[in-house]
Amino acid sequence: MTCSVEIVCVGNELLIGKTLNTNAQWLADKITRLGGKVTRITEVGDDVQEIASAVREALKRKVDFVITTGGLGPTFDDKTLQGISRATGKKLKLSSEALRLVRDRYREMSILKRLRLTKPRVKMAILPEGSSPMRNPVGTAPGVLVERGSLKLISLPGVPEELRGIFEESVAEMIREKSGNLAFYESSMIVRGVVESALAPLIDRVMRVNPRVYVKSHPKVGEGRIGALIELHFSSIEKSREKAREQVIRAIIDMVRMLGKRR
Amino acid sequence: MTCSVEIVCVGNELLIGKTLNTNAQWLADKITRLGGKVTRITEVGDDVQEIASAVREALKRKVDFVITTGGLGPTFDDKTLQGISRATGKKLKLSSEALRLVRDRYREMSILKRLRLTKPRVKMAILPEGSSPMRNPVGTAPGVLVERGSLKLISLPGVPEELRGIFEESVAEMIREKSGNLAFYESSMIVRGVVESALAPLIDRVMRVNPRVYVKSHPKVGEGRIGALIELHFSSIEKSREKAREQVIRAIIDMVRMLGKRR
Repeated sequence: MTCSVEIVCVGNELLIGKTLNTNAQWLADKITRLGGKVTRITEVGDDVQEIASAVREALKRKVDFVITTGGLGPTFDDKTLQGISRATGKKLKLSSEALRLVRDRYREMSILKRLRLTKPRVKMAILPEGSSPMRNPVGTAPGVLVERGSLKLISLPGVPEELRGIFEESVAEMIREKSGNLAFYESSMIVRGVVESALAPLIDRVMRVNPRVYVKSHPKVGEGRIGALIELHFSSIEKSREKAREQVIRAIIDMVRMLGKRR
Repeated sequence: MTCSVEIVCVGNELLIGKTLNTNAQWLADKITRLGGKVTRITEVGDDVQEIASAVREALKRKVDFVITTGGLGPTFDDKTLQGISRATGKKLKLSSEALRLVRDRYREMSILKRLRLTKPRVKMAILPEGSSPMRNPVGTAPGVLVERGSLKLISLPGVPEELRGIFEESVAEMIREKSGNLAFYESSMIVRGVVESALAPLIDRVMRVNPRVYVKSHPKVGEGRIGALIELHFSSIEKSREKAREQVIRAIIDMVRMLGKRR
């Protein structure tokens, strides 16, 4: 089984370089470890048309999951659900279930002495028709799940702790299940004093002998500078972690032997 | 004048969450400060078909610049130029100008005692027909410029120092020129003890009074947790830095006044 995932990150702060997209990396790492395969990450601004077009394109590529981050909060520029509504044709409607979640969270907050469900607060409970809210264990904006046939379109807030909380509580298990419990294993070795162009044929050979292992070179001190320093990253996806680990170790041993012969 | 830019980042390491995409953030920040507007960032894996489709879609959206990062090196999985060749229909061909740049860089390297232009090294000089190589002041793989009418498609290597070196030396000026020297100014203030849903109407009002300023709230301690801490980010793009700065300061003063009245 495979489980393909696209991530769509929403936020002007990403496009002006104010914010480093740690959410995308965190999600990609988690999803990979759960046996899923992230096939594309797209970042767009807080613009309904842009969000809708990125989501529509992701839906067209027929992945198993599309996960959006950001744009679920109470302010005017939190527009993700408007974009999803436009991409899917599902109208935005007040969800009583989501409103209950929002109200419960505010009740738990000690800082708001008397709760008023103001317009910005109610906004967080206005979801595409037929979608389900996912409890936010950390903040107030619920996550949102829209199902289209077998595809799941999931929206998570942009505040990292909230994104992580909802993912761990409600999303991780869906991905694990869809991937059929595939296991990812990775390991790295550092090679000093050999430039990448000289390593290239060795990488080719190791991958030919170990077809289930992906080897990628990451120059830390790049080609053309004194003191070449390259990270060789080995990874494998198998039915068990033990099997994936075995494959990776065998490939590393092959690489070490070839490097030894070279010297 | 406006100058729109899309960024396409290539690398499996981004999709498995191994690498935080600092290149995209660095570029987005630089481009914004040069007066350009990044409209989308896409991350795809080391796959010719995926690269080609992301580049083709970016070209279709008719921006002024498409900048790719990564996949220019000497190894088998450096496939960006193959993807660009497929997206643009320009065949890959050995460029004598690029080969000269690669050869010069290896000659300058003290670590290679005798230079052999092996296949992986020559690979870095095989470019889409009609493109121009851009000198890499730090590493060996040249940057690549493909022109399509008024659109510039630029490829930079993934090693951060190399990407930055080529950008500063050859790309920055093109963007500054295209943007007509627009200036970006930004400033932030921290608001404590007011939740985002309570700030939302104030942000609306400040933006209505200051239509040239964009105000965005970034919850540091999110809604629903004790000790609300929100960064309010103000930014403006104007013909001069002074003018942009003036607009931003006026908006901050308005916000401070409104917050004062609230208490």
